[in-house]
Amino acid sequence: MAEAVPKTCKVVLADTIAKNLLQEVKDTLEKISNGEQHPCLVAFLANDDPAAIKYAEWSKKTCEENGFAFDLRKVDKEALEEEIMLANDDKKVDGIIVYYPIFPGNPTHDKYIQETVSLHKDVEGLCHKHLYNMYHNVRFLDPPHNLKKSLLPCTPLAVVKILEYLQIYNPILTYGNRLYGKTITVINRSEVNGRPLAALLANDGATVYSVDINGVQLFTRGQGIKSPRHQVHDKEGWGLKECLPISDVIIGGVPSESYKVPIDLIRDGAVCINFSSFRNFDGPAVKEKASIYVPSVGKVTIAVLLRNLVRLVANRPSDAHQQARKEAFTDG
Amino acid sequence: MAEAVPKTCKVVLADTIAKNLLQEVKDTLEKISNGEQHPCLVAFLANDDPAAIKYAEWSKKTCEENGFAFDLRKVDKEALEEEIMLANDDKKVDGIIVYYPIFPGNPTHDKYIQETVSLHKDVEGLCHKHLYNMYHNVRFLDPPHNLKKSLLPCTPLAVVKILEYLQIYNPILTYGNRLYGKTITVINRSEVNGRPLAALLANDGATVYSVDINGVQLFTRGQGIKSPRHQVHDKEGWGLKECLPISDVIIGGVPSESYKVPIDLIRDGAVCINFSSFRNFDGPAVKEKASIYVPSVGKVTIAVLLRNLVRLVANRPSDAHQQARKEAFTDG
Repeated sequence: MAEAVPKTCKVVLADTIAKNLLQEVKDTLEKISNGEQHPCLVAFLANDDPAAIKYAEWSKKTCEENGFAFDLRKVDKEALEEEIMLANDDKKVDGIIVYYPIFPGNPTHDKYIQETVSLHKDVEGLCHKHLYNMYHNVRFLDPPHNLKKSLLPCTPLAVVKILEYLQIYNPILTYGNRLYGKTITVINRSEVNGRPLAALLANDGATVYSVDINGVQLFTRGQGIKSPRHQVHDKEGWGLKECLPISDVIIGGVPSESYKVPIDLIRDGAVCINFSSFRNFDGPAVKEKASIYVPSVGKVTIAVLLRNLVRLVANRPSDAHQQARKEAFTDG
Repeated sequence: MAEAVPKTCKVVLADTIAKNLLQEVKDTLEKISNGEQHPCLVAFLANDDPAAIKYAEWSKKTCEENGFAFDLRKVDKEALEEEIMLANDDKKVDGIIVYYPIFPGNPTHDKYIQETVSLHKDVEGLCHKHLYNMYHNVRFLDPPHNLKKSLLPCTPLAVVKILEYLQIYNPILTYGNRLYGKTITVINRSEVNGRPLAALLANDGATVYSVDINGVQLFTRGQGIKSPRHQVHDKEGWGLKECLPISDVIIGGVPSESYKVPIDLIRDGAVCINFSSFRNFDGPAVKEKASIYVPSVGKVTIAVLLRNLVRLVANRPSDAHQQARKEAFTDG
């Protein structure tokens, strides 16, 4: 009788996945930069959120290690809009990131700020045009030429990159259909993270249960021909109790220290990923259930941020602009 | 001894003010339309809000009485985005209005929908470019030509039009400074109504206290030279008790049936205006205190909506478009 294979959970750290992505970023940068160096990312910090400060520090470190300039600007929240406009007009700035929330309790004001960032410098992929394209599965900004790729929001894209690395995306299937047959629960439906993530996964063929305190929504792929958009249906009366036992992948993103995904509802061998800055899964317990566990995604998010930045550089509109940047870098 | 002048409050109805505005709209439409008739306003109703339904009915009536076509489209909230895109591309549609909220409890999703409406058809003045221009006191969409006026959101503009009618705007002062010396409290700081209103009034020279459940903010005119933006300061520890006694004008916009402005805090002879669909002022009591009382603004808002629609027609980009519309109307 063969020995039973021990039931073990593979813990995959963000660092490992980030390294691969950063190498890819470096290679692309070399190809497109024509000897230019150091694309410049400007980050605006207008709150005292310790998570934002930590993320900014990591971003700075990662930028500098990978040939990017990182310029952190601490500004008063009332001056933020003007400062963003200045950065929009500054040819030395390649990308702009803003740490949210700026106006807690007033998310539409934050959304207004997001829209203030120029589309050409929107490294976070949060401008309406980028979000619109994501929700409609439109991959380019300039159809029918299709030379400029549309950007995706960083955290959702980081989760997608993780799922690709983990081969949950099945490369045997056609591109755009590689999650076909997979059931995924995403716990969080914020406009910045959970909802775009659910849409991205559904657009790639998954059956996605999007869960928040208001209930469960089912995201499935759209049927349209022109820019197919995922479809959304309320699942009346559903909760985690219905979603988790049928899910191949469970993605936690609840921004709360006390929140824990109920482990007993998770099916044996599921893949568990946490993108919250808090641990949504109890480590020892989840390892008894999951086949793969990714405890955090932050470093992948930063790698994706740089990937987006390189894309912005590649998308840049004019040669005049290129020339101005070249001169700027010769001066510095 | 002369008899004391009886202390009486003048009640001004929205209807009176709306009539003047509608006459102005008619005159402008005749001037710009070159014999074309009936600009078409498409209204999307994707909720069951009785206030929205009532507003839609009034809008239809006012449109048809004043030479406009009104096309109410009831759609499922999940289909709304696609329907808006179709209307954006439809040359027979001159303006688009959406009745909010669509996704209650998720204001950033509604904000996403707002941004879906084409700037050229945004009759409500809620697209980012329109809001940006309003907050920065930028009057045109096409500097330096300055041929296309930027639109202002309807309800805030309706309140401004009422204050002009009531001569709170002092025409003796320079244009842009006609509220100088006035203190105004606005009770509501929503992104659609209260906050833009406070900014508009501050940009015209008023000292504005913007009050909501989170506290009081002081809006004053910006000092900048290029596109001066109003300034905002938190008034720590302030409440209605501090604002109302020093206010010349009190504007209520609390969307709640039970909310009433505390009449005892209002100073004698103040001007009281209610833009909520509920009565924020107790009628008999406010008449004992106020010099002027405007119990509702809805009809002025609709007149302003048509004023905006005419402006969109005047701003229209191309002659090809004009031609297409002409043909369309010949068919109909």
